[in-house]
Amino acid sequence: LFKRVGIAARVDREDAVGLGRDLCNFLQENMVGACVEPELASRLGLEGTPLGKMNVDLVVVIGGDGSILRVLHALPQKVPILGIRIATVGFLAEVEPQDAFSSIKRLLKGDFIRDECMMLSNNIGLPDALNEIRLGTKTPQQMIRLEVAMDGVRVACDRVDGLIVSTPTGSPGYALSAGSAIVDPRIDAISIVPICPLSLNFRPMIVPSNHVVHVKPLKADEIHILVDGQFEKNLRPAGEVVIKKSSESVTFIRFGLNHYERLRRRLGMTSTPEA
Amino acid sequence: LFKRVGIAARVDREDAVGLGRDLCNFLQENMVGACVEPELASRLGLEGTPLGKMNVDLVVVIGGDGSILRVLHALPQKVPILGIRIATVGFLAEVEPQDAFSSIKRLLKGDFIRDECMMLSNNIGLPDALNEIRLGTKTPQQMIRLEVAMDGVRVACDRVDGLIVSTPTGSPGYALSAGSAIVDPRIDAISIVPICPLSLNFRPMIVPSNHVVHVKPLKADEIHILVDGQFEKNLRPAGEVVIKKSSESVTFIRFGLNHYERLRRRLGMTSTPEA
Amino acid sequence: LFKRVGIAARVDREDAVGLGRDLCNFLQENMVGACVEPELASRLGLEGTPLGKMNVDLVVVIGGDGSILRVLHALPQKVPILGIRIATVGFLAEVEPQDAFSSIKRLLKGDFIRDECMMLSNNIGLPDALNEIRLGTKTPQQMIRLEVAMDGVRVACDRVDGLIVSTPTGSPGYALSAGSAIVDPRIDAISIVPICPLSLNFRPMIVPSNHVVHVKPLKADEIHILVDGQFEKNLRPAGEVVIKKSSESVTFIRFGLNHYERLRRRLGMTSTPEA
Amino acid sequence: LFKRVGIAARVDREDAVGLGRDLCNFLQENMVGACVEPELASRLGLEGTPLGKMNVDLVVVIGGDGSILRVLHALPQKVPILGIRIATVGFLAEVEPQDAFSSIKRLLKGDFIRDECMMLSNNIGLPDALNEIRLGTKTPQQMIRLEVAMDGVRVACDRVDGLIVSTPTGSPGYALSAGSAIVDPRIDAISIVPICPLSLNFRPMIVPSNHVVHVKPLKADEIHILVDGQFEKNLRPAGEVVIKKSSESVTFIRFGLNHYERLRRRLGMTSTPEA
Repeated sequence: LFKRVGIAARVDREDAVGLGRDLCNFLQENMVGACVEPELASRLGLEGTPLGKMNVDLVVVIGGDGSILRVLHALPQKVPILGIRIATVGFLAEVEPQDAFSSIKRLLKGDFIRDECMMLSNNIGLPDALNEIRLGTKTPQQMIRLEVAMDGVRVACDRVDGLIVSTPTGSPGYALSAGSAIVDPRIDAISIVPICPLSLNFRPMIVPSNHVVHVKPLKADEIHILVDGQFEKNLRPAGEVVIKKSSESVTFIRFGLNHYERLRRRLGMTSTPEA
Repeated sequence: LFKRVGIAARVDREDAVGLGRDLCNFLQENMVGACVEPELASRLGLEGTPLGKMNVDLVVVIGGDGSILRVLHALPQKVPILGIRIATVGFLAEVEPQDAFSSIKRLLKGDFIRDECMMLSNNIGLPDALNEIRLGTKTPQQMIRLEVAMDGVRVACDRVDGLIVSTPTGSPGYALSAGSAIVDPRIDAISIVPICPLSLNFRPMIVPSNHVVHVKPLKADEIHILVDGQFEKNLRPAGEVVIKKSSESVTFIRFGLNHYERLRRRLGMTSTPEA
Repeated sequence: LFKRVGIAARVDREDAVGLGRDLCNFLQENMVGACVEPELASRLGLEGTPLGKMNVDLVVVIGGDGSILRVLHALPQKVPILGIRIATVGFLAEVEPQDAFSSIKRLLKGDFIRDECMMLSNNIGLPDALNEIRLGTKTPQQMIRLEVAMDGVRVACDRVDGLIVSTPTGSPGYALSAGSAIVDPRIDAISIVPICPLSLNFRPMIVPSNHVVHVKPLKADEIHILVDGQFEKNLRPAGEVVIKKSSESVTFIRFGLNHYERLRRRLGMTSTPEA
Repeated sequence: LFKRVGIAARVDREDAVGLGRDLCNFLQENMVGACVEPELASRLGLEGTPLGKMNVDLVVVIGGDGSILRVLHALPQKVPILGIRIATVGFLAEVEPQDAFSSIKRLLKGDFIRDECMMLSNNIGLPDALNEIRLGTKTPQQMIRLEVAMDGVRVACDRVDGLIVSTPTGSPGYALSAGSAIVDPRIDAISIVPICPLSLNFRPMIVPSNHVVHVKPLKADEIHILVDGQFEKNLRPAGEVVIKKSSESVTFIRFGLNHYERLRRRLGMTSTPEA
């Protein structure tokens, strides 16, 4: 099933490094090739392979959501990802460290689910977004005036700190912090969420994913575009950002913990006690 | 195309009654049968037909969203509806009074769009909802504890004033007032929105429309169910409300004003002036 | 300092009843008179005194916020209250069960702080509110149109589910659930918070406590008034509700846990882990 | 009463320049000295005086809130300000252009109200804020972890886009856009409002104005501080921002339009039509 597995880990955490070592040994014992990221490899006394040159069927990421996004964007092609969560905010990473080996065993037996997540593409040369694209000011003292159009109708035209265009996968993250609703990843939709809009009528909107979102800064200001909190670019005045569903997607390996279970973990949802 | 047209109007407004009269005459001149609601008919000196007995191909409603909901639920079968908005909140009614006759002419020529809107059914014998189903307390001094389950996972279990389960059509209405996002009606989804939840982690959620929503009151309290602000029922303790997409839908006649144009009207969206 | 102490407890919880028994014994040993609520007294084989007839210097309440509100409103005069929190939401009750006796010892030595909390009075014959006054519909299927005036200016006039007029003490409760801000109890202010307003421009407002809040239902509907979730009344059409700071206040006994420490407990505030 | 009046206007608008000319003439006719800002002066063929050198009893600002803030911060001492609103967002400026001369006449007769507004000072050398101090990231791709302490209690410690510390005057502006409540300017209080907090439990808080607000970035990141959208500074890692009520205040000349009337104008509050 998987002939060659890539391994990446946060090297600033000893537990992540240790788990990476154990995982390498386990894969060798099971006759699966392991391909280790250089920094981790040097910690383990192995030879490393940069993510950009990994020719693997799957990557195991030991860390948090930030690590997964970093690996995802560095890989030369989109291979499935299995995230093992190390003491951190982890909505994307499903597996807890204590379940790492039972999960890997299930993985090698083919006993898992593929969870395919849509991405958002843009017209300005930045990578696709798994979570969200943020449009904002280039420098903090500015405000920007954005116009958002749908179906040729100007649905919003307001001064804002920024605008988040999010996938369902990203909806319990930054978009939620900005006041939007949580969108089930099985819905093919895009969330459009203003950050600190001057007008109280500019509210979060969920639009079909076959919809093309046009965002235009109204004044001759540069705006700053940020993809998944990792890739950025300044857009010249008078430019327009066009965002739509990408033809690419990301596949996560899941073992049964569904969207709503991961959501509970993200939100710290607990029953409130009796009065 | 349309052989027999039903007509309903708010009879507490003279402009609505007058428009109803003109519309009757116009249909007669154009050899289309008119079927008039009793109250309006008596104002016009005509013989009326109760909505529940109307055998028509289409109904024109002169009024606001409240009138449309009333007519919709009273008709014996779901026929297309054309709403003419009389000085009121009108998200469902597209046509302005001054455009009534040009719209009717386009209607008779077949120059229009059918906008099909999903409804929500319930397991407790109330009619389907076009906008939303509200679960709440029977008497105002209570609070209720509700458990909401998705995919067998308890996603929320909290004390609330109530819970709104809304269609995309209803999303810019009550669900928006309760803090949710606006959902494009082309998305096949259901919004689940708590009203005044005790826990700040209970947030609006958008779920796929093929999803069955289970809501269970946790204590032995009666709860009150309200469909489209019009039909109500008290649910015995220990009952469970099961809400899902109905097999029925409602069709509105549209002439091009799209979702986002109607949304602007609903929100009073206007550009904010320059600083 | 305190010659006679009243004791009230939730009798549906054995730990509360047990703590009540121990507390009675402790007070007797320390030569302080105890006055026990009838239901608790019968459980302890003692003679009880109804709250309304208690002539005491202080009341200890073993339970949650609901118990404290019930006792507070039943007492013939406002005496200081010490709350011991039994497994429940407890923003008003400061002391944890394990600290009950060390706290009572500090109490008898005079080593405590008096925390005086403002109340809201009304013009319709209901008791003063420690937390909030809620104006809403009498029956759940209605919506109401309310006009709120300040300084003679109509600041809001909208269809709502209800309106919360809250003290700072109530601000982390119902008012927070409805979307308002948390007000420090040392600020002399009243929060005015709409529940599900139709207009997105009707936002929570904090006004000076010497301000008189006038709320008027616009249509000829009855409205329902609820004080601290406990006392209710229906207001005839055309009535007006006038709310202002009461001349009475409530004093809580505190041992150092300040507003913000209790707030953390209410909100379950915890540091979020590293990314 | 006023011997010498300063005049400032937006010179990018002809109506503002024209009103400035008329005002100069009117003051001369009434034997009041006028002191004109250089840019406006050169447009009027007069000799100008920089704001920083104006020795006047009052300044009339013709423009919007941005102009008022610019003038306020440039004046060598805090003199009363009268704002005339030119086609723009104007919460601070009370007078409409058509009322400019009747207002100036009332001003010279002493028929007006002084509205004194508190300001916020900081420990990092930036000017006092009339509206708000914003703490945020230096560059847009960062998130920051801030700790906010009150009374020695850590009330929040979360990853955010930024934090707004606002006066009541600023509360219907940026703080409202970020989700806070509107605070009456007669309340002596400070609003603390997170921008896009990761934790849903970090909510806007209103604290007494004699309270000192301590904000500390948790990681070794630089943060960016912005006062009234105009003055900025980067704070070195490990620094702490201390914000408190300033000993200085700003006085606005008012003619009766009270806080709530100006608020209605800001919010575009209108009655919603009947259903």
